[in-house]
Parts: sequence; structure tokens; C-alpha cells
Amino acid sequence: MTLDPSDLHARLDRMESRAAIAELVAHYCHGVDKYDAETFMSIWHEDAHFNMGPPIGASSGHQDIRQTLENVIWPGWRETHHWTVNLVVRFDGPDRAHGVCDTSCVGIMADGITQLIAASYTDTFERRDGEWRIAKRSVALPFAGVLPDTSNLMATPAGVD
Amino acid sequence: MTLDPSDLHARLDRMESRAAIAELVAHYCHGVDKYDAETFMSIWHEDAHFNMGPPIGASSGHQDIRQTLENVIWPGWRETHHWTVNLVVRFDGPDRAHGVCDTSCVGIMADGITQLIAASYTDTFERRDGEWRIAKRSVALPFAGVLPDTSNLMATPAGVD
Amino acid sequence: MTLDPSDLHARLDRMESRAAIAELVAHYCHGVDKYDAETFMSIWHEDAHFNMGPPIGASSGHQDIRQTLENVIWPGWRETHHWTVNLVVRFDGPDRAHGVCDTSCVGIMADGITQLIAASYTDTFERRDGEWRIAKRSVALPFAGVLPDTSNLMATPAGVD
Repeated sequence: MTLDPSDLHARLDRMESRAAIAELVAHYCHGVDKYDAETFMSIWHEDAHFNMGPPIGASSGHQDIRQTLENVIWPGWRETHHWTVNLVVRFDGPDRAHGVCDTSCVGIMADGITQLIAASYTDTFERRDGEWRIAKRSVALPFAGVLPDTSNLMATPAGVD
Repeated sequence: MTLDPSDLHARLDRMESRAAIAELVAHYCHGVDKYDAETFMSIWHEDAHFNMGPPIGASSGHQDIRQTLENVIWPGWRETHHWTVNLVVRFDGPDRAHGVCDTSCVGIMADGITQLIAASYTDTFERRDGEWRIAKRSVALPFAGVLPDTSNLMATPAGVD
Repeated sequence: MTLDPSDLHARLDRMESRAAIAELVAHYCHGVDKYDAETFMSIWHEDAHFNMGPPIGASSGHQDIRQTLENVIWPGWRETHHWTVNLVVRFDGPDRAHGVCDTSCVGIMADGITQLIAASYTDTFERRDGEWRIAKRSVALPFAGVLPDTSNLMATPAGVD
């Protein structure tokens, strides 16, 4: 059995690209939920398009995306918790891929209402200068429910002081 | 340092198989939640067994599984949102693997009741003719709660028109 | 094109290490949720530190961690369902890595109250004697809400007996 070195490299590169793309998807959550603008901005190409759909709408480019994060999302919710899963990635070539994934999100809005949201992301990922980032992300939001007022307090399990 | 080409191939193949299996698990969610029968059916071998447990029960083979999807699941819920995670895969050989994973699911039933479900999948994956698919999936449903009526309306964050 | 065998090995090993680490994160959930102490204990090094934060606090070493599992967590909740996602891993070298991931958890406490929890794990993973395990895990718990009493009963979809 022999292996063509360039084929071998392509297969390894594909696996590493998958891991890099999964990390972009995770970093979106860590960035927005943990108030980490640097991490959040690191996932986007400079000219990225980010369409959150109504009511927030679309942003283009780093400056606009950062404005959406800092002036719309963060003031709009006291806290958010995104859990993004079901990632499927299709490659167009070595440096471009399309993805779809789903998130569940608990968010406490500025007025204290707690939402449970189901959303899906449709993404275009591109590798430029050796680095995978998001070129385009569109959000679909099929479900948003309201959870009972929880006052955000953790109950203490029995037997624990 | 030298690497045995066939060992190298086996290791790469194992990683690629893991990715293919994770995609089957994700496609189940995309298929059922997004009313995409083609994607849903693509994850099963022709003779697959799909046991949802009570009250829906077991299906065998493509025709029966499709019937369960289209005549039981889709009419039973207005919408479903599955988020499947915690996937662990054990290989039996190059072409067979066992998996376990967990899903959280929000579903709005036909009568408007919104459920929050915890379920686990126990799977047998097989590669036939070079393609990984599910040979057997069993569902365990340890928890199903009811969420408050949400009317499925998204609240608009403050400051957004 | 030529590939350096030791570089090739390092890249493959890195991918396999990522898979092993993701499995530790999943096994935590399977172990605690499915009352499988053996699986739960298998993820920790003998001298691991596990800090759950208040009110449960920190455990050190297998004996102490097992005591926390069996005498605090399991009696404190009737059932738990952890869904852990958003895993990001950074390697320090071939045998050490740092990770962060997020979990959503539904838990029914001993008194019947159903919680919805958002938590994050910050982990140090180490490979010793060829085996990846957790050396240190710290839990942050930013959100815990209470779900309505659900009686843990599944509604039956229309059309199913």
C-alpha cells in the first residue's frame, strides 16, 4: 500500500479545517455570551456579512458587526447563553466551505423577560492567508418562547449548605 | 521516524469516519426539524431499524421509517427543534461502530403544547459500499416537561424597532 | 510534494487527541446523567481537581470526586440532563491542553423543582501514560432558572395510541 503525499496532505488538511471551522462556531457563542468582543470579532473576515434577520437586521464589515454586538445585542439582553450544535460542513474546495448548524439560546432581555430561542445559522467559511473565518452568516429564528420569571437564582440542593 | 502507510491510512480513515458519523447524527436533526425528508432518509440504510420507543414504537426499512416521519412525527408536532450532543463512538472494526448521544428537544405539539424533552440515542453505524449510515437507532426518553404557552412570538429587544 | 513523517504523525496525533478530549467532555455527561460511576470516574486523573463552585465546592482526587458524585450530586437531584457544547481546545504541547465548553442542563432537584441551568467548564487535559484525562475542571454557573412543574409526564402526540 502506498499513499500519495499530496492526497495525504489534503485529507489531513480537510480534518484540520473541520476543526478550525467548528471552533469559529463555538467562538461566536463564547464571544457574545461572555462579553468577549475580541473573541467575537476574531471569527469574522474584515468584509464579512452578518444577517441576524428581523428585527435586528444585517451588518457588513468589522465596524458594523462590532456595533451590532456592542450597541444592539449586549444592551438588548442582560445575558445570553448559546449552545450551538448539529454542525454540517460542505467544502467547495480547500479554502471555502458552507455550513449549517443550530443553536438553542436562553436569553434574559433588558426588561427581565427570559427567552428560550431556537435558531439556525447558515454560514460561508473561507480560508484567506491560511486562516479560516466566517465570510457570511445568516440567522433564521424559527422559535422563541418565554420562560417563567426565574429571578435567575439557583436553588441549593438538599443537604448542601 | 517512519510511518507504516497502511497504519497511516487506518488512522486517517478513522478520523474521517468519525466526522461522517457525526454528520449522520446532525442530519437526523436537520431532516426532521426542517421538514427535509430527503436529508432525513439519507442517514438510514435501506434495512435500518428505528425504535422510537413508546408511544410511537419501531420502524424497519426505508418505507416504514418514512411513514413514521411523514405520518406520525410531522403531524404530531407543529414544529420540533433537536439539539444533539455528547456523541461517543466506539468502533468494532473499520466499517462498524456503536454510538451514544443525547438530545434536547423543544417541540410544539399539534394541540399547541410546548414540550422540553431529554432523549438519548443508541446507534449502530455501518459503512457499506463506502458510505456510513445508521443501521439501528434506539431512542430512550427519560424526561419530557411542558413549557408555558409562549404563543411562539419573539419579543423585540429594547431599542430595536 | 514530500511530507515529513514526524510532522505527519504530530498532525494526526493532534486530531486524535482532539477526539479523545471531546469524548472526556461527553463522558462527564453520560456518567453523571445515566448513573454510571465507572464512566464518570474514568475521565479524571487520580489527582484531579474538580471545582464545582458554590454551593458544592471543590473535590481533589478520585476518592473525593466519587464522594461528591455519589453523596452530593446524585442525592441532590432526582435526575439531570447535561448537554455540553461549544468546546474549544488549545494545546500546550503534545500532552497538555486547555479547554472551555458550555453546558445546558435540566435537573429535577430532590424536592421536585425542575431547573434549567447554564454552566461553563474550564478544563486542563493531560495525557499521561498515553491516556488523555481531565487534570482540572472548574465550573462557572452564570444562570439557573426554574421551569414550571411538569410532573415529568410525556404528552402523547395526536394520532398515537
